[in-house]
Amino acid sequence: MEMTPRAPGHALARPEPSQADVDEFSRLSAEAASAVAVLSAVWQGRDYAGTVGSFLTVSWDPPTMLASLYAESRLAAAVAGSGRWALSVLPYGHKSVANWLASPGMPLEGLLERVPFRRGELTGAAVVDGALAHFELETADIHPAATHLLVVGTVVGMGSTAPPSEAMDPLLHWGGDYVRLAGRG
Amino acid sequence: MEMTPRAPGHALARPEPSQADVDEFSRLSAEAASAVAVLSAVWQGRDYAGTVGSFLTVSWDPPTMLASLYAESRLAAAVAGSGRWALSVLPYGHKSVANWLASPGMPLEGLLERVPFRRGELTGAAVVDGALAHFELETADIHPAATHLLVVGTVVGMGSTAPPSEAMDPLLHWGGDYVRLAGRG
Repeated sequence: MEMTPRAPGHALARPEPSQADVDEFSRLSAEAASAVAVLSAVWQGRDYAGTVGSFLTVSWDPPTMLASLYAESRLAAAVAGSGRWALSVLPYGHKSVANWLASPGMPLEGLLERVPFRRGELTGAAVVDGALAHFELETADIHPAATHLLVVGTVVGMGSTAPPSEAMDPLLHWGGDYVRLAGRG
Repeated sequence: MEMTPRAPGHALARPEPSQADVDEFSRLSAEAASAVAVLSAVWQGRDYAGTVGSFLTVSWDPPTMLASLYAESRLAAAVAGSGRWALSVLPYGHKSVANWLASPGMPLEGLLERVPFRRGELTGAAVVDGALAHFELETADIHPAATHLLVVGTVVGMGSTAPPSEAMDPLLHWGGDYVRLAGRG
């Protein structure tokens, strides 16, 4: 059911986008809501962890996931260096954990002191207590893409520790804010 | 704040996951909510389109996105063959469009007859009318990952055609169902 020949919108400046294009893309891309997870790794004896919205399930069989991490971040270095990592999908009640681990410049010392966690059996990485789902992964591939690294991981362990009261209430990110589903909590 | 030494959960069978592992992974990975979009391409003169939840923004500058497509699907073949595609992020009011385009076995003839769309200026691909945001992309890289292809695209055009009444009400997928945000609509 074609409405009119052309969609309203505009082309980006080529080959380099303008700052206005980048700003508009940032705004428009925030229209795509995402789940919120903590990604963690242990590297050279230290814990690294950060809040991520850029992850997805690639394949059910073999169980495979992907996370997109800013290539210059400490977390990307830790994941690339360790080869093992964990993802903990957060319930809405963990919004303060998401906020705490969302600051890129945070000192590593004490990073996890405010975060209830246990260590994953297979990776040693921090698994957030009360996560809707958690996954332990071994890196299968890393692909650079623009400013980021696409880290593809094979799932080696999984579980869930969310109490029933939080199990139906995922934390979401949309339009630059944390939000929740209708009819939950 | 480490609670106990080990997280509850379990290791997957190696090297091949069991069917029970695959089923549990499918259930647990559905805990990660996602936006819902229509991905489209024109290839060899025909329209291809499908509902996708596996896409994300990789980089703001240069504007870059990624979609994960089942490698054996017609849509993946069309995207790989065309090198140009579009993503339309759907509002909740477009749930019927999402359902319509979610069936993998649908005949191509008439595929878009029930879908209000216009053609993207830069790709010719169908852009769904009323999308919260739409993006036109040129493929920058394709990486095989397990059963899927990770298609990385450079954003060459973008816009939004959602009416104000739908602009705050994204369509989401969570736990196997279409859902919406609290306080919308």
